[in-house]
Amino acid sequence: MTSRHIMTAFPPAADGLVTLANWRKHPFSEWGFRNVRELLPTASIARSREPAPLTSALTWLEDISFANPRGETVDLGEALRTSHTDGIVVLHRGKIVSEWYTHGLTPDAPHLIFSVSKSVAGTLGGILADRGILDPDSPVTRYIPEMKGSVYGDGCTVRHLLDMSVGIQFDEDYMDPHGDVMNYRRATGWEQPDPSVPPTHLRQYLRTLRPDGTPHGHTFHYVSTNTDVLGWVYERACGMSYAKILSQHLWAPMGAEHDAYITVDSQGAARVAGGICATVRDLARFGEMMRNHGVSNGKQVVPVWWIDDIRRNGNADAWLRGDLTKVFANGNYRSKWYTIEHGEPPFAAIGIHGQWIYIDPAGDTVVARVSSQPLPMDLDLDMMWLRGYRAIAARLNGKD
Amino acid sequence: MTSRHIMTAFPPAADGLVTLANWRKHPFSEWGFRNVRELLPTASIARSREPAPLTSALTWLEDISFANPRGETVDLGEALRTSHTDGIVVLHRGKIVSEWYTHGLTPDAPHLIFSVSKSVAGTLGGILADRGILDPDSPVTRYIPEMKGSVYGDGCTVRHLLDMSVGIQFDEDYMDPHGDVMNYRRATGWEQPDPSVPPTHLRQYLRTLRPDGTPHGHTFHYVSTNTDVLGWVYERACGMSYAKILSQHLWAPMGAEHDAYITVDSQGAARVAGGICATVRDLARFGEMMRNHGVSNGKQVVPVWWIDDIRRNGNADAWLRGDLTKVFANGNYRSKWYTIEHGEPPFAAIGIHGQWIYIDPAGDTVVARVSSQPLPMDLDLDMMWLRGYRAIAARLNGKD
Repeated sequence: MTSRHIMTAFPPAADGLVTLANWRKHPFSEWGFRNVRELLPTASIARSREPAPLTSALTWLEDISFANPRGETVDLGEALRTSHTDGIVVLHRGKIVSEWYTHGLTPDAPHLIFSVSKSVAGTLGGILADRGILDPDSPVTRYIPEMKGSVYGDGCTVRHLLDMSVGIQFDEDYMDPHGDVMNYRRATGWEQPDPSVPPTHLRQYLRTLRPDGTPHGHTFHYVSTNTDVLGWVYERACGMSYAKILSQHLWAPMGAEHDAYITVDSQGAARVAGGICATVRDLARFGEMMRNHGVSNGKQVVPVWWIDDIRRNGNADAWLRGDLTKVFANGNYRSKWYTIEHGEPPFAAIGIHGQWIYIDPAGDTVVARVSSQPLPMDLDLDMMWLRGYRAIAARLNGKD
Repeated sequence: MTSRHIMTAFPPAADGLVTLANWRKHPFSEWGFRNVRELLPTASIARSREPAPLTSALTWLEDISFANPRGETVDLGEALRTSHTDGIVVLHRGKIVSEWYTHGLTPDAPHLIFSVSKSVAGTLGGILADRGILDPDSPVTRYIPEMKGSVYGDGCTVRHLLDMSVGIQFDEDYMDPHGDVMNYRRATGWEQPDPSVPPTHLRQYLRTLRPDGTPHGHTFHYVSTNTDVLGWVYERACGMSYAKILSQHLWAPMGAEHDAYITVDSQGAARVAGGICATVRDLARFGEMMRNHGVSNGKQVVPVWWIDDIRRNGNADAWLRGDLTKVFANGNYRSKWYTIEHGEPPFAAIGIHGQWIYIDPAGDTVVARVSSQPLPMDLDLDMMWLRGYRAIAARLNGKD
């Protein structure tokens, strides 16, 4: 099976058909991740009627070199071509210095961003908090009383959702075919329905989750469902669907050029934690706004204090007790954004299968990259790309 | 159940939930027809990057009066409010003279247009024919050899598909819960899956259809599947999905302001005959292009000869032998467009549940109207609106 045969004939060849059973598996994912709406129900996240301009100042970066996972030196061009990258946009001081697409992706095509969706949700939270619509310190049950009895009803606040410090019994193992993630995915409609499993939906499923005994706020524990609960809190606070809230408060004001979209389940519940599809250019705009202290398209879209808080106020002890120290030994996670080292160095939004927004404020650099990496988690590739992003920023700032 | 409760809470109330089981039933359809993508997989039909300008010259038309189905005189405002209309745009000499929305529809929201989709397909056929990509006189099997053995393999040409004169055994009864239409809808993914019925898909289903003994070309016989076969022919002729063909050759060149979309089945087959969702303004642009001899946004998008052929060359005898004389006694159907009388009077695109594009070239008038009428076919309302459209054109031309 080569990607050449996938969804190219009418009808597609039997072994080239992308379905709910294979859409996240390579090479079907190359088509699947940029055609999610053809597989699942989705809600539109409307663009701006006056997009933020993105000017080009293209610069030759392909010869930038860094170490690949085997310790060999590769240049940026080769790294892109061998790491299952589908598209990349690099901004320096807000201008496009590099842009590249493959595997059928185009500047106009929304690509699934998986957990980069979480950082979108965390950013939206700051906007709603600044407007007095959302209180991050309130218990979840203030917004969703029926969470009583679940892990989210037991002293859990919106802040715990934002920072992934809920003491929840949930194993975020993407590879387990029978584990929590599979049950969760079923509830979101992302799996081929299995007649032997009673149908459920996301909001019902979220209410079944239970504590693991850890006090809330103590330990960084990466669990996707926390972000879906967060989106549900927003819906209750705003009286509007998540897709509409996101469009009205963030996506349109930011100056997005393209409609984005998000998958919805059988009851209209958005997969807030991982279901957004957006163009790479709009992801770059989003990153640039974060670099630019929340300003985009001439407007203060995200409050400065929220971004400062993301960069400074993560709980370092909770991180050290947590489950991603193998990725960033001294990292942090605040309001759904990663800081890679303590203090105020680059920060990032990261999704499985190789989705990244990397923001280096000191280096005036933003990288938005989407991929169809075969493995959900591929630490070797993540570490290669961290080296790559640093090398790009160094070149752009005349330091290589 | 009032429409006020439908899909307004998070989660929706049990009796306010729109699903595949109720989305075409009133009042759920008011939400369903403008949120199809939240229920079904869909493919994007990309807009123009430089939309055709639509200027406003709003005129008071609400007092225009005509007879309602009970023979009482109603004014336009009352007719709109009592006929389940969701939105309307009236153009006179290309300018918006009237625009109105209700039931949650907005100028930016795509609404399902049902069989108006067929007229879009028929128009696209002219563009492809003019470019030498499609030969309307070729047998269907030139493009889809595997149609051999079905009704579409037996002397059936593309022209027979375009004019609904295939001698096919198919009863287009929208109300029969066990008839051909139900089997067809299942194949397109529009029905809640029934575990007792083996799953199928559209292109497979189309190959199962059989002749009824009538020679092709003899009788106007309105059968939706003919248009789905037509779309499949285009896909084979262009080597591209229907949504992409439509965007590239018609929707973008025409200057559409909004992305439209179309539902797709489990194999990516578009429901060409009835699955397009578009904004009312873009439907008005489409109608205006037809009125304007195929010119839109400063370009000849549809060949003049194709539009002239639509208006002049329908087979009047086939119509008289056909199944819609109860709607238009002396109508005609050519390349998926209705002419309401023989000759060159107004022509129209019509879809069930009250979707219309009415084009009156002599009166320089175009009306695009979308609705959620409870009945698929409602002849009383259709006749009222024909009177309404005529009264509107008369007023705009100073003849009332």
